[in-house]
Amino acid sequence: MAVRVDLNISLDGFATTTDQTPDNPFGDDWPRLVGAYASTRTFRERVMHDMSGEGSTGVDDAYARAYFTNIGAEIMGAGMFGFHSNLEDPNWQGWWGDQPPFECPVFVLTNRVPRPSLELSGTSFHFISTTPEAALKLALDAAGSRDVRIGGGASVVLDFLKAGLVDQLHVAIAPIVLGQGRQLWSELRGFETAFEVTSEIAESGTIHVTFRR
Amino acid sequence: MAVRVDLNISLDGFATTTDQTPDNPFGDDWPRLVGAYASTRTFRERVMHDMSGEGSTGVDDAYARAYFTNIGAEIMGAGMFGFHSNLEDPNWQGWWGDQPPFECPVFVLTNRVPRPSLELSGTSFHFISTTPEAALKLALDAAGSRDVRIGGGASVVLDFLKAGLVDQLHVAIAPIVLGQGRQLWSELRGFETAFEVTSEIAESGTIHVTFRR
Repeated sequence: MAVRVDLNISLDGFATTTDQTPDNPFGDDWPRLVGAYASTRTFRERVMHDMSGEGSTGVDDAYARAYFTNIGAEIMGAGMFGFHSNLEDPNWQGWWGDQPPFECPVFVLTNRVPRPSLELSGTSFHFISTTPEAALKLALDAAGSRDVRIGGGASVVLDFLKAGLVDQLHVAIAPIVLGQGRQLWSELRGFETAFEVTSEIAESGTIHVTFRR
Repeated sequence: MAVRVDLNISLDGFATTTDQTPDNPFGDDWPRLVGAYASTRTFRERVMHDMSGEGSTGVDDAYARAYFTNIGAEIMGAGMFGFHSNLEDPNWQGWWGDQPPFECPVFVLTNRVPRPSLELSGTSFHFISTTPEAALKLALDAAGSRDVRIGGGASVVLDFLKAGLVDQLHVAIAPIVLGQGRQLWSELRGFETAFEVTSEIAESGTIHVTFRR
């Protein structure tokens, strides 16, 4: 049972982009940052429900498959759930559609509580307002013998990393320089000293670095 | 004939360390940042004049060998030459000893001019105060058909990178988080778009990323 994080970051350590505009809601940087992951067969099947068999099947896909393997519960922030969008729609059920890819209990950290849980074909979203430690206890209990993933966004992940609650961090580094966004590393000096570090290059050029306790 | 840069950086993009003290003049971060390079057989032979045959001979050493191959002239800053140390010694001839590893003309950018050139067993140091473009012209003329290296430090390298004067940038990324120092990437947003990017992992865990025009 491990607490795991996976993030797409740029060579300069940015885990989120900031070039979004109303006319270009994902920005130009987003596809450069997550393109290799979003091109994998696993992402297409699991997130896009594209069962055509298209998508890359190399090293990036192996990490994408691992991403969805043995997760018993997930913790995410309000933004990753989708609370910051479609504010005008009272029936908005988040970004993830009728068939979210998580297929496990998901604990959404938000101040919009109390709020009833939401069941969507195998994924249950539970809305909580608490500390990282207390959220993790809930998620570990729900996960049983399986792992817990801290899904994102970057701020939530950073809170858990800084609190020393993460057993495995995998970063997929796109070899691009963004120069702006939310920095993953800036408050993590010496982070690697508590971990074994391994790295691997994908066919796409993505550099996969994994820190394991 | 190419203009080349090689730098050791941390996972968070720091090319220099800042934890030095009078009692610990290199700091604790420096060996973590450059240790893999300094352990190569090529570095030991070429820089330390240790001809015992010890030192690593894998991927890191291949990059170290390439570092010293086909360089016809070098440009470096005053700090890398050694002007900022041993200020009290009028005979101080820089960091690099009687047998500097460069073995070519080296153009040192400094305000301490005019100053006579210095010949040290195959390496000639020329002291100039000029723009990156003018320094590069001098170096290219001196290099003939061979390459010019912009040696460092980080500030000098950044000046040349930002001016678009570099054809090949190789960064050897130590998988460590320094959290402080001189950032390589901060002013280079989109840098990679003018280059082909390739990456390779060394036995030491060092991630070698090369940008080539």
